[in-house]
Amino acid sequence: MIGSKKGLSEEEQKRIERIKERNRQIIDQHVQMQTEEFQSYVAQTSDHSLNFPVSKSDSVYLWDAYGNSFLDFTAGIGVNNIGNRNFVIMSKIKEQLDHYTHTMVYGEHLQLNQIEYAKAISGYFPSRDDFPQQVFFVNSGNEAIDLALKMSRKVSGKKGIVSMERGFHGRGYGAMQVTWNDNYKKGFFVDDEATVFLKPGGPIPDQYEFWGDIGTVILELVQGEAGCIPLSKIWVQKLLKIAKAHSVLVIIDEIQTGYGRTGTFLAQEQYEVEADITCLGKAGGGGLPFGAVVSSRTNFELLQTPNLSHLTTFGGNPVVMAAGLAVIEYIQEELLSHVQEMGKYLTEQVTEVAKSYPKIIKGSQGIGLMQGLILNDDEHGPEFTERFYKECLMRGLLLHFKLNNPYVLRMTPPLIISDRSIKEACDIFVDVCMELESSDN
Amino acid sequence: MIGSKKGLSEEEQKRIERIKERNRQIIDQHVQMQTEEFQSYVAQTSDHSLNFPVSKSDSVYLWDAYGNSFLDFTAGIGVNNIGNRNFVIMSKIKEQLDHYTHTMVYGEHLQLNQIEYAKAISGYFPSRDDFPQQVFFVNSGNEAIDLALKMSRKVSGKKGIVSMERGFHGRGYGAMQVTWNDNYKKGFFVDDEATVFLKPGGPIPDQYEFWGDIGTVILELVQGEAGCIPLSKIWVQKLLKIAKAHSVLVIIDEIQTGYGRTGTFLAQEQYEVEADITCLGKAGGGGLPFGAVVSSRTNFELLQTPNLSHLTTFGGNPVVMAAGLAVIEYIQEELLSHVQEMGKYLTEQVTEVAKSYPKIIKGSQGIGLMQGLILNDDEHGPEFTERFYKECLMRGLLLHFKLNNPYVLRMTPPLIISDRSIKEACDIFVDVCMELESSDN
Repeated sequence: MIGSKKGLSEEEQKRIERIKERNRQIIDQHVQMQTEEFQSYVAQTSDHSLNFPVSKSDSVYLWDAYGNSFLDFTAGIGVNNIGNRNFVIMSKIKEQLDHYTHTMVYGEHLQLNQIEYAKAISGYFPSRDDFPQQVFFVNSGNEAIDLALKMSRKVSGKKGIVSMERGFHGRGYGAMQVTWNDNYKKGFFVDDEATVFLKPGGPIPDQYEFWGDIGTVILELVQGEAGCIPLSKIWVQKLLKIAKAHSVLVIIDEIQTGYGRTGTFLAQEQYEVEADITCLGKAGGGGLPFGAVVSSRTNFELLQTPNLSHLTTFGGNPVVMAAGLAVIEYIQEELLSHVQEMGKYLTEQVTEVAKSYPKIIKGSQGIGLMQGLILNDDEHGPEFTERFYKECLMRGLLLHFKLNNPYVLRMTPPLIISDRSIKEACDIFVDVCMELESSDN
Repeated sequence: MIGSKKGLSEEEQKRIERIKERNRQIIDQHVQMQTEEFQSYVAQTSDHSLNFPVSKSDSVYLWDAYGNSFLDFTAGIGVNNIGNRNFVIMSKIKEQLDHYTHTMVYGEHLQLNQIEYAKAISGYFPSRDDFPQQVFFVNSGNEAIDLALKMSRKVSGKKGIVSMERGFHGRGYGAMQVTWNDNYKKGFFVDDEATVFLKPGGPIPDQYEFWGDIGTVILELVQGEAGCIPLSKIWVQKLLKIAKAHSVLVIIDEIQTGYGRTGTFLAQEQYEVEADITCLGKAGGGGLPFGAVVSSRTNFELLQTPNLSHLTTFGGNPVVMAAGLAVIEYIQEELLSHVQEMGKYLTEQVTEVAKSYPKIIKGSQGIGLMQGLILNDDEHGPEFTERFYKECLMRGLLLHFKLNNPYVLRMTPPLIISDRSIKEACDIFVDVCMELESSDN
């Protein structure tokens, strides 16, 4: 590497320093220009975009325009489950590109990858009325919620929905109806009056007066944007039992928990519950836009009357299916038990750090590799989270925020992460804690 | 080719016929198995899926599993504007795959292709308040409508919307609010009571009593699913003038008309009108899932209060952007004038056929290469459309239906189509007309 050679004269070393400095300035200029254009042309709905100048991704790392590498603890927000730019995904995409890409809207053409994908996913769900459950492909988790709500209302004949406090399901007019945070609905005239928000872990009404107008329950088993909060298994089982007694359909939003994120292919497996309708998204398209709804053939057939009651142009896109199929094939028993082990290891390591720096870190919460790093909110305001995050970034570790919890940082690394990388991240936490404690004094 | 050689003995010819027959049977079995799996695992919302066993696509052709080629007059429903599996798109995708794919949710990372794409699109729109218009990327036209409605309501502070009779905008809870056909809303409890449907070409109310609660007008300039019906230019200009006088925002849905489909990059150019908010989709992702909303910086900034009032995981995906950028770069003046010429030629050719077979074909309607083939509904019921369509398919021509008009077949070939291919399609129309007339007698 430039400048690393020994035995250079002082003059030569100075020349090399000048070259490096010049290079840095050139890149600075590029990045500055890009940032300006980004802010000018790409619509910004965040008041503090990261403006990270990404230049390359691979495995558990991202690189910026300066050539610095970063340990990726976000995986694009739970998307790149089998690693950034996984080789198998790349090959499958390239292979599909040589045959055909988009050829027709959903449901008209026989596309092999789409059929294989649906069959593979269906295998994770129990049969219903002697038929395998079916998969409808859409373009995002948000669109999966739209379809799930449409179907549940059509099947139940009721508009009313029970959703969860702190629940987050997306940004469209369907998802906003069941999303808890009022900030994300302000000014949009969202039709959420038929939605009742229940406190997870709290009392569950059982009387007809409550359930009479309700046709749907929707929930995440691990509440992602709330800070990776796992719901109580007993509470969820009780809720679903009561819902079933009142003939209410249950939608489980596995958009973030699916595809092995929590250590099983679906979080439902660990909770020992079965949804009537499951929403998928995030990791399922191997990094390309993807969403899906899984439910019984009987439920989907209701969308044939009137004919084509739901449809999508791109859903089940052959290139997306190729990429996603690689993800499914990659997620085998070994990877799932690896996720369980690494999840446990991450919890242990963070607990260790929290013990040494209790004023800064409280600990972590979550299941598998869907975890939140909880900062101490007794000692600090929410701006401290940004400070902590930035100190990690400077040391080459990429975390991210949670929409609904200002004191929790996101730890959702690629599932293929090693214990060594987890240790590396936790060493950075220690380093940051030391720095912050000393600067606080 | 097998069996095409001259001078074979009768026995040899018979043997070759047997081999061909055996091959056909094997493919038949494969296709049958695929069809069964398709119907079992992939959710069906159509009661008569085409089950077309696509095996390859290229330029203006698709191939089925038997090796038969089909002239593609659908382009995946107006998606593959620069041809199926266009070489430039494929190269751009592969190139991007070698650097990075999805790395973060929308708005956080500087991704070059995304910035270039937004800048290129912004160039087709006039500046507003001295700033270039901005682009927000989503995953489908449906999602673009969601965002457009959110923004328009936030800006106007009003829930009420004027939409068009026969208008179609998508299947989500946002799009359904402004979609005309009640069949697509039945049983879903769609909140469309604040939407007024206006008859295109009909009277336009001008009094405050009508507009007082209205904050938004939404329209397609060429109504796609209605059968490619272009709205009257004078009527549209009058509507927009009245809307402006009442401070009502105008959303133009260019999901199908955009990216050169009508012979200009946007249909707005031909109508000499400017939308406050434009929705894009279909062709913009080069065959990958894509949608976008274009509007002023001032309008988008309103979505920063509260912070992050809209967001998407996949929108602006680097691979989709790479593919879409190839589309934008490909659509130059020459292609646009080609579209105008070919559109004119298609109209002329269909008019010729209609003259000879007036009982079957009435003519065509539309702009550029977004046209509908109008069958004679005085003489036939809607089942005749399916018959006509199937006879074309048997002759190697792929058309498709319209959701809201049973007598119109879709003619939206790739924009690169040649006059020779258009002639070929029209010759097939003649052949089918002859066949149908003779079988009718």
